[in-house]
Amino acid sequence: MQNFIYVFDMIGTIACAISGVLVATRLKMDLFGTIVLAGVTAIGGGSVRDMMMGTTPVFWILDNTYLYVILVTVLISIFCLHRMDRFSTYLLPIIDAFGLATFTIVGAEKALSFGFSGIVAVVMGCVTGVVGGMIRDLLSGRIPLVLQQEIYATASILGAILYVICSYFGLQAMIAMTIAMSGTLLLRLSAIYWKLSLPIFDDRR
Amino acid sequence: MQNFIYVFDMIGTIACAISGVLVATRLKMDLFGTIVLAGVTAIGGGSVRDMMMGTTPVFWILDNTYLYVILVTVLISIFCLHRMDRFSTYLLPIIDAFGLATFTIVGAEKALSFGFSGIVAVVMGCVTGVVGGMIRDLLSGRIPLVLQQEIYATASILGAILYVICSYFGLQAMIAMTIAMSGTLLLRLSAIYWKLSLPIFDDRR
Amino acid sequence: MQNFIYVFDMIGTIACAISGVLVATRLKMDLFGTIVLAGVTAIGGGSVRDMMMGTTPVFWILDNTYLYVILVTVLISIFCLHRMDRFSTYLLPIIDAFGLATFTIVGAEKALSFGFSGIVAVVMGCVTGVVGGMIRDLLSGRIPLVLQQEIYATASILGAILYVICSYFGLQAMIAMTIAMSGTLLLRLSAIYWKLSLPIFDDRR
Repeated sequence: MQNFIYVFDMIGTIACAISGVLVATRLKMDLFGTIVLAGVTAIGGGSVRDMMMGTTPVFWILDNTYLYVILVTVLISIFCLHRMDRFSTYLLPIIDAFGLATFTIVGAEKALSFGFSGIVAVVMGCVTGVVGGMIRDLLSGRIPLVLQQEIYATASILGAILYVICSYFGLQAMIAMTIAMSGTLLLRLSAIYWKLSLPIFDDRR
Repeated sequence: MQNFIYVFDMIGTIACAISGVLVATRLKMDLFGTIVLAGVTAIGGGSVRDMMMGTTPVFWILDNTYLYVILVTVLISIFCLHRMDRFSTYLLPIIDAFGLATFTIVGAEKALSFGFSGIVAVVMGCVTGVVGGMIRDLLSGRIPLVLQQEIYATASILGAILYVICSYFGLQAMIAMTIAMSGTLLLRLSAIYWKLSLPIFDDRR
Repeated sequence: MQNFIYVFDMIGTIACAISGVLVATRLKMDLFGTIVLAGVTAIGGGSVRDMMMGTTPVFWILDNTYLYVILVTVLISIFCLHRMDRFSTYLLPIIDAFGLATFTIVGAEKALSFGFSGIVAVVMGCVTGVVGGMIRDLLSGRIPLVLQQEIYATASILGAILYVICSYFGLQAMIAMTIAMSGTLLLRLSAIYWKLSLPIFDDRR
């Protein structure tokens, strides 16, 4: 179980680090600036989660693997950039969606494992999934993806709720995580592909 | 005493959640995006306060009432939006002022109750009152209200100082809170109404 | 040793508070808004560091000297503004560089003194050095200095690495700190003076 979550967490870390590199490249940042932006995106959400839950020192201080994974990901990504280049407009939202889906489940699971309530687990899933990308977008002067119309926070909240329900009914961890992650990913990718959005409450009517 | 503070805290939570909904509506955000923005505004300041003081898990993890109050406030606000609509330009700063005033006192009181010094209580009042709205404004791409010319941080700092002084002289809690909250509210609302501002240190002279 | 670090920390606090005042003045903020912005710049980075490491309450709650130093710095800076005025375009990056250099070493040293690994010390040095200025820039609607092309994060990371290496080889604290701080300061000031930047990974080629 723990190993399974760990693998998910690493996938999310790699996905978020790549999304940071993509944004940094567009902003023409140098190597270390790129490392900072990739790092913030990859471990920002989990750090805020840990600080809120009081499980400090935060996860990456206790397990430096995350930092090394980010470093290696940044170096490889930069090396491959001339290949990813022409796809980056399509690639960024898709890779970001993977980070969102994995981190949401990891965050919800961590909150449940500490004995917090279901609603706290949903919030923590959402915090872990959303905050890293939010800080990335804020720092780079973009309007955060989470605030744009396409279903974003919605996908994270739905995934977290799915995971909490599956856990509540005692489903096996691997199944629960697969269901919840598929839910977030499907919803988010459909939203990107079909430009879906929830009905909006327009105050200009 | 504790009950009295709790009531204040809930009023602040409701006010800040409504202010989040008003901003989210202007940005045409969907339901869950709106919940996220309302939540950040309502519990962002208190979360930062608790993380800084080390009183973790933060307050809303231990008492989920805050989360349910935010949810209900968002749903009711959205339902009533067509009525608030034409007033929203006036409403946002006024409701925001209520959140500022209540959260400032709640934050200062919490710091004092943990035995921290008067100046720390003033800072914590200001953090609790100001940070939620700051994050709301940052996320929505607006220049934070706190940085605009009308007396904002000033009102929060004054309210917190008033509360610390009242506590120092042993005034009854209800009286101390009423005085301090009235101070912040009066100063902020006057600033909005008469477009007051403190003298500014202009470096362009 | 501790005294030496404390002096560094105060120099960084004063430098960052002045940089906050310079930005606040350009934005025509009032006295209390200026205090808030100066305070955020001066103690924002160290607060995030302490929250991540779990060494809470954060440093300035336990030692209020930092708050008083900020207050006095703001009042003196405002008083001297008509003299600093015409230099402020040049002054801001230089004073900011001093804050970056001192806080980087202070942050790295604090992480090492708690027994964390070298890579964590480098990250903590960078967090302490960079985050305060980042929040200052975010709040004032500017693109963070750290994300602009001139070597910024690079200077902080290099200084932190230098300090960790010096500590590893058991150099005397004063020497280690002087080497590391000079490294950051020289690199950053050269970057400002000669408009240096690292090669950038341009995806538009």
